[in-house]
Amino acid sequence: MSTTTGQGVRTTAAKPGRRPTIKQVAAAAGVSTAAVSQAFNDKGRLSEATRQRILDTATELGWSPSASAAALRSARTRTLALVVRRPTDVLGADPHFSELITGIEGELAPRGYGLLLHLVAGAQEENALYKRLAAEGRVDGAVLTDARADDPRPALLARLGLPAVLLGPPDRAAAVPRVGLGHQAAAVEEVVRHLLGLGHRRIAYVAGPADLKHTRLRGGVFETALRQAGLRPYAVLHTDFTEVSAVAATQALLDAADRATAIVYANDSMAMCGIGAAQRAGLRVPDDLSVVGYDNLPLGRWLHPRLTTVDQQVQRVGAAAARLLLARCGEDVEEAALDDRPRLVVRESTGPAPG
Amino acid sequence: MSTTTGQGVRTTAAKPGRRPTIKQVAAAAGVSTAAVSQAFNDKGRLSEATRQRILDTATELGWSPSASAAALRSARTRTLALVVRRPTDVLGADPHFSELITGIEGELAPRGYGLLLHLVAGAQEENALYKRLAAEGRVDGAVLTDARADDPRPALLARLGLPAVLLGPPDRAAAVPRVGLGHQAAAVEEVVRHLLGLGHRRIAYVAGPADLKHTRLRGGVFETALRQAGLRPYAVLHTDFTEVSAVAATQALLDAADRATAIVYANDSMAMCGIGAAQRAGLRVPDDLSVVGYDNLPLGRWLHPRLTTVDQQVQRVGAAAARLLLARCGEDVEEAALDDRPRLVVRESTGPAPG
Repeated sequence: MSTTTGQGVRTTAAKPGRRPTIKQVAAAAGVSTAAVSQAFNDKGRLSEATRQRILDTATELGWSPSASAAALRSARTRTLALVVRRPTDVLGADPHFSELITGIEGELAPRGYGLLLHLVAGAQEENALYKRLAAEGRVDGAVLTDARADDPRPALLARLGLPAVLLGPPDRAAAVPRVGLGHQAAAVEEVVRHLLGLGHRRIAYVAGPADLKHTRLRGGVFETALRQAGLRPYAVLHTDFTEVSAVAATQALLDAADRATAIVYANDSMAMCGIGAAQRAGLRVPDDLSVVGYDNLPLGRWLHPRLTTVDQQVQRVGAAAARLLLARCGEDVEEAALDDRPRLVVRESTGPAPG
Repeated sequence: MSTTTGQGVRTTAAKPGRRPTIKQVAAAAGVSTAAVSQAFNDKGRLSEATRQRILDTATELGWSPSASAAALRSARTRTLALVVRRPTDVLGADPHFSELITGIEGELAPRGYGLLLHLVAGAQEENALYKRLAAEGRVDGAVLTDARADDPRPALLARLGLPAVLLGPPDRAAAVPRVGLGHQAAAVEEVVRHLLGLGHRRIAYVAGPADLKHTRLRGGVFETALRQAGLRPYAVLHTDFTEVSAVAATQALLDAADRATAIVYANDSMAMCGIGAAQRAGLRVPDDLSVVGYDNLPLGRWLHPRLTTVDQQVQRVGAAAARLLLARCGEDVEEAALDDRPRLVVRESTGPAPG
């Protein structure tokens, strides 16, 4: 179980959007894919001339050994890593992660792969973990979550020879392929338009933690979309995604004399708690209060009223990320197509603003 | 990274209820715990006499090297396996598993451990997986789910030298320590007593798949408890735990002229779907229909009405299983105490039977 990728391996960042395969390298060099592996792995009975021809062909085609490091290892682990930088209790509070894991597992299980789940407290711990996993040869690749500005992880993983995909909106300039829906902004604008069209003017936003990138992004779009209609947010309240803080935020919004007539929540589980809190306060949803969630969890479709929400296709994103990563690990898997953006699913929890 | 546990290692099944520790062996032999490891691992600079004394002491105390195999390995993986024998989409449909994983991760994360999650389709695949994980030295131990009659896994894992704990009701005769709440029957009886006390006579049960052990157990207790009151179940309907089948079962129960006045669901997410379906049909919960769930998921506390449910302490069971397994892997962790049985949590979704 060695983690070295052999001599002559240059670990360059992969070029997304133009990913040559080991098959193409083999065909161009007139050898088998096994021979390509052997050339990079410094194994087998290749002549030095053949080895050099294969390495040259790979360089020419821009085939990145780093992207296929796992395929070059003498032993595959059939394990992919998913490192989540969250407090552990968020896994329970936010079904987003179980949806994501379900989507990933749906692709891994039939192929005999396992998912190594690590929860870490911070960026340093996360980076140290990738180094250890690579050094000990524990995983074939990694699914990265929570895209950040100036993200050091793509370069780190390329250096470690670990194939990776990053969950986040598509970005052609990214050093690691990204899997996710683009145009999150368009979805938030669609939510605001939907509520404005129903006559709402006092619209509040119950957001996630202020330090998360997508919290800031969506909050900014929410404010801009309202401003274009000559309005300001009724309020923007930050939470830690827990049920307790969702209920507290809702109660604060509904206690005011001139209360909000519509509340947009950063995820479905908070929205469902919000509906419960409003109903308990004697308000009817949507007659007295409209509620919009975000995620399109299965349960939201079955509560009464059925939840209006933004479909992020979390399971499908997880599945697509797993497929792309499996392909980069040398498995024969086709990439999965995703819709281009999250979409508003209008159900029963939104209605005309009270007169 | 070797998976052999050294010469002289006898892999016997651990004796629950009497688990000597490596510390006790070290103290009795007058050596350090490191020396005990070395003796079993065939490493270090021990004299043959010392090595033999340590091995004899361990045998005398009944210290099982199999229970501490991970501690004896030259390299720890800091990874525990959780193998779930379910269709992948159940992970998403039943928050039970995300609660369980949350409980486990809460103990692993602070100690730098990861959880290797595998979904398998059947028993053969599960057993083959343990063999591979042990042979490749991928995990330090395993949390086993879904206790079965004539379970081959405890013996298999003992043979493989992999420490394990089994999620299930306590059983002193079990070859592998069990972590879970006992007296599931008492909890179901408590549910039936609660509903009978409220005057309900037409009580239905929306169960899980008929082939699951706990489905059969709870169904049997449900029928027996009603029979003791001179009643029979209004109906027992089996589902695959999905929202769709929960809603379909609820509609079938409510369509009848002489409809059920109380429905007990095998888990909370089905119960929440059931409340939605009843409300959509124009029924008030609990005035027209009482609903009881099973699991005590966080969300149930916040919907309107708040869900009456059975607290299975899933997160705490996960945490306790992780702690016990970590201890068996040589970590310095105290075992966690669990309540002795699941308890009924009466909230707002149950009330007097309609007159």
